[in-house]
Amino acid sequence: MTRENLRIDLERLLGRIGRLGEVGALAGGGVCRLALGPEDKVARDLVVGWMRSLGLSVTIDGIGNVVAVRAGRRSGPPVMTGSHIDTVATGGLYDGNLGVLAGLEVVETLNDAAVETEHPLAVAFFTNEEGARFAPDMMGSLVFAGGLDLEAALSSVGIDGKSVGACLDDLGYRGEAPCGGSAVRAFVELHVEQGPVLEAEGITVGAVEKVQGISWTEATIAGVSNHAGTTPMALRQDAGHAAAAIACEVRRIALDAGGDQVGTVGAITLKPNLINVIANQAVVTIDLRNTDETRLQEAERRLEDFLAALREDGFQVETRRLARFEPVDFDPGIVAAVETAAERLGHSVKRLPSGAGHDAQMLARVCPAGMIFVPSQGGISHNVREFTAPRDIAAGANVLLQVLLELAGEAA
Amino acid sequence: MTRENLRIDLERLLGRIGRLGEVGALAGGGVCRLALGPEDKVARDLVVGWMRSLGLSVTIDGIGNVVAVRAGRRSGPPVMTGSHIDTVATGGLYDGNLGVLAGLEVVETLNDAAVETEHPLAVAFFTNEEGARFAPDMMGSLVFAGGLDLEAALSSVGIDGKSVGACLDDLGYRGEAPCGGSAVRAFVELHVEQGPVLEAEGITVGAVEKVQGISWTEATIAGVSNHAGTTPMALRQDAGHAAAAIACEVRRIALDAGGDQVGTVGAITLKPNLINVIANQAVVTIDLRNTDETRLQEAERRLEDFLAALREDGFQVETRRLARFEPVDFDPGIVAAVETAAERLGHSVKRLPSGAGHDAQMLARVCPAGMIFVPSQGGISHNVREFTAPRDIAAGANVLLQVLLELAGEAA
Repeated sequence: MTRENLRIDLERLLGRIGRLGEVGALAGGGVCRLALGPEDKVARDLVVGWMRSLGLSVTIDGIGNVVAVRAGRRSGPPVMTGSHIDTVATGGLYDGNLGVLAGLEVVETLNDAAVETEHPLAVAFFTNEEGARFAPDMMGSLVFAGGLDLEAALSSVGIDGKSVGACLDDLGYRGEAPCGGSAVRAFVELHVEQGPVLEAEGITVGAVEKVQGISWTEATIAGVSNHAGTTPMALRQDAGHAAAAIACEVRRIALDAGGDQVGTVGAITLKPNLINVIANQAVVTIDLRNTDETRLQEAERRLEDFLAALREDGFQVETRRLARFEPVDFDPGIVAAVETAAERLGHSVKRLPSGAGHDAQMLARVCPAGMIFVPSQGGISHNVREFTAPRDIAAGANVLLQVLLELAGEAA
Repeated sequence: MTRENLRIDLERLLGRIGRLGEVGALAGGGVCRLALGPEDKVARDLVVGWMRSLGLSVTIDGIGNVVAVRAGRRSGPPVMTGSHIDTVATGGLYDGNLGVLAGLEVVETLNDAAVETEHPLAVAFFTNEEGARFAPDMMGSLVFAGGLDLEAALSSVGIDGKSVGACLDDLGYRGEAPCGGSAVRAFVELHVEQGPVLEAEGITVGAVEKVQGISWTEATIAGVSNHAGTTPMALRQDAGHAAAAIACEVRRIALDAGGDQVGTVGAITLKPNLINVIANQAVVTIDLRNTDETRLQEAERRLEDFLAALREDGFQVETRRLARFEPVDFDPGIVAAVETAAERLGHSVKRLPSGAGHDAQMLARVCPAGMIFVPSQGGISHNVREFTAPRDIAAGANVLLQVLLELAGEAA
């Protein structure tokens, strides 16, 4: 059998996606599997079990990243694929999970066909990609790539007050392998687009050229609590209104900037949060993204100007940077390899940027990296209704198989 | 001793205010004693104990209102004073509590001086005036005045999911007296102003002429949850932004209307409330108040227009009216009696409206009613820093004493 004729087993891959999706399943569909929670433990055990049953050699590093290696004819750095298996609180079956399980499917396909590669292959899942419980997001891959100190990551405290380190100990996933201690030859991640572009244009495969830069800020505004009936409008220091004004301004910033600039206030928490009391504290999160670093900085500057104006109006405003990543360009050779593999397999393909952050952008710091996108129905993700059609999953996984074989070299 | 020379005992009154303020005391000052919670039970038992020790005859009605009667020479409807002892989550020592405890102080002063009145006197405290846990606010006095069906009030579910009826049963304060079953001859309530007017003008006593109308609405906005990075601005249905836009519009409505119109969004709750997920649900509360019914209706209309525009933008917006009270005019005879008593006692006095809702406005439905205000330092209330100077408390309680004697008639 020639390499070009190898195909993954879609039913087997969908079976694993379905079984992993049962862990943390929400009534009515979707998944809640926050990083390092009890559901993540069950999911990790399940995936590690599959890795071992495929004959892979599993190591776990100090931040809980799991790397499973299939030996090549030569030793040395592996060609790696993978993603993450944590989800947001109202997530779907595909975000992250597809990339990990497609990697296992590629391995099983190669095992079944007794195909050896020149270089080792590895399938990894990285800790806390979503950042829904712990900041920053993409934590595991960032530590893996040397961009964040291990101790700093372990001491990050989640929305429920517990640290990453304590959770890893509870789960038994604080491993002994050094973080990023082993070199990687190349990294390719298959992922759902999480946006509307591929579906809207009728394209099956995205060859991802770059990733948006991300700027996450948390602003805490202190006002003065007072009676909602007796305090004249002119005499108020209403932290709730300040929070609302920030949310409106963030949308204006994105609309005024145009292009691919987006801005989101996803979380607003008021104190005391009562109908008849003017809020004395508001905490808001601000998520700004752009593929262009200069434009992203412009958006950040407008936000800072707005917060400065609130301070001039008498509010105390404290900000905390929760995450900041510059836009990332992927390796041109891998982008071309994805494009070529998709065309050879007869799929429509398009180069496009990623609107979301991904583990692959962290790996791009230490090795040639790239990504393969498949369409998201309705562009919906981070939502229980997230869906990608089976034939698109097959297309993406087969492109992944071909690109990994290309990078790892088929043994003669 | 003539009636005009009778004076309350300030130390005794401040002592009771201090002891009641210890129940639900917050570290660093202030009180959290939400209606019908465990702290309210302790506070009720404390005040009822004082009532009994003063020789008053205590009855409790079906909504947990407590009425303590001091017999007069004649039987028949009592002249009543009182207020409430529940607080907001970050409340002070005076709001409500002052009116109840000043009533007890008046009784003890009359007891000590062996003064009999022609008509009975009563001191009451009404359940859930604040509305911080259960809607509507002023619940107990509203039921007492026949403005709300007892069963409807008992089935009101609090922010913690528990009903008024269940809480009353737990506390042992679902009494057997019929609600509003006994007539009231007149009602006078002493209360802190909770606004800045008296202090700013250097006035000691406010003779309250009327109460602002109150309109409380809860709006629930359904949007679409989606990824904050990959969803273009134009394709979003961001419930969080819709909530923020409502809060900004409510402030604009109040500023545009001018006069004494106020508008507050004190509570905003987003789901899932995560930094990188566009909110799919937002619940906001809207508090609008005006002393003029026509202008209040205009403000409500502008709010409705704004919500209608959100619906046209594709949001599902459901509204629930949590409370609606028209402005209330107090009895001119009682307003004049407050003014006269203050002048006779040598205090500066001013007629003014109330910006807050009070139990007295409910009693105004069934008997002549009025209120006495004393200054709030800095105009601050519904805040742990709420404060009224002792000499102002003495002034208010002595005016209350004189007005009650005037209305109840001193026995010859």
